[in-house]
Amino acid sequence: MELLRISVATKNRHKVEEANIALKSFGIELVPVDVPKVEIQSDDLREIAIYAARAAYQYLRRPVVVEDSGLFIDALNGFPGPYSSYVYRTIGVEGILKLMRGVEDRRARFVAVVAFALREDWIEVFEGVVEGTIAEEARGSHGFGFDPIFVPFGETRTFAEMSSEEKTRYSHRGRAFRKLGEWIAKNIDKLKPLLQT
Amino acid sequence: MELLRISVATKNRHKVEEANIALKSFGIELVPVDVPKVEIQSDDLREIAIYAARAAYQYLRRPVVVEDSGLFIDALNGFPGPYSSYVYRTIGVEGILKLMRGVEDRRARFVAVVAFALREDWIEVFEGVVEGTIAEEARGSHGFGFDPIFVPFGETRTFAEMSSEEKTRYSHRGRAFRKLGEWIAKNIDKLKPLLQT
Repeated sequence: MELLRISVATKNRHKVEEANIALKSFGIELVPVDVPKVEIQSDDLREIAIYAARAAYQYLRRPVVVEDSGLFIDALNGFPGPYSSYVYRTIGVEGILKLMRGVEDRRARFVAVVAFALREDWIEVFEGVVEGTIAEEARGSHGFGFDPIFVPFGETRTFAEMSSEEKTRYSHRGRAFRKLGEWIAKNIDKLKPLLQT
Repeated sequence: MELLRISVATKNRHKVEEANIALKSFGIELVPVDVPKVEIQSDDLREIAIYAARAAYQYLRRPVVVEDSGLFIDALNGFPGPYSSYVYRTIGVEGILKLMRGVEDRRARFVAVVAFALREDWIEVFEGVVEGTIAEEARGSHGFGFDPIFVPFGETRTFAEMSSEEKTRYSHRGRAFRKLGEWIAKNIDKLKPLLQT
């Protein structure tokens, strides 16, 4: 099978790795491209991803994928949500653990939104969610971001205690990118002319 | 003196009130207008304000002021910074106090950036900063946002323990808007044709 290569606008190598694990069985490989990223402030990941995908398309003038994701903690009213990356860079894992100290309700979810811009006016959106809880302390060294404090339902280990392959089986990102793969596979005849430029 | 009225793209009545206190002696009054606000994600308030001002101008097709502000806490690497409004809505004042529990270095600053779009390609930017510390507990009921936990240098009271007039004398927002007022006053002959539409 011929490998279908599609541009993805991210500099995060972990994200590219996880996306490509999810897309492998569809014969798709995402190739990172350097695009000035335009992210708006919004409580809605879909809105952020759609805006970014359109901006990336306008810059590249060819089909491009963007992904946005966040950790939403119930007891913190959804914080850090769409700003997870900024929150990670400032208060970090320790900050979240401090905010959750003494909090009984530890429910949280990771959400990933993948937006695929095929034209300026044609953007397909795929969402993946994984429910879980915030651990009492950080564990594990795989992955990135808040992986060391997130335990998916049905597991005792954090995402950072799993290999990328194992994490991607459960994860928000794995789910969103598998939906993308399925959609591309189903529509491949229609998409071929757009993707082979 | 004839009052000069200029549109401001905000729904926050506290911001409008403080801006108009600062601008009164310049004979300027800001009038809130309803504009879909486009805020980008950035660690740089200036970048956010300039982008928003341009977008607001493109929507209104007339001169418009936008303001963006944030609380930057040294010990938290600048958190909550440009995302202060989201952080206030989720973890709130109590969340910041919890993050600062046991932290000795309580230095922080409020920063306001005012961007004034006169044309699509002409945006003037004014910045105001006030240095201070994070209080040990919330005090006062005036103002909004993180005012109850911010004590400006040289004071023992928080911003929320001061009237709007008194706060505006010290505040980041007061400083930024007074700079705007001075600039408009100095350039009024050049600006009149643009502002009287």
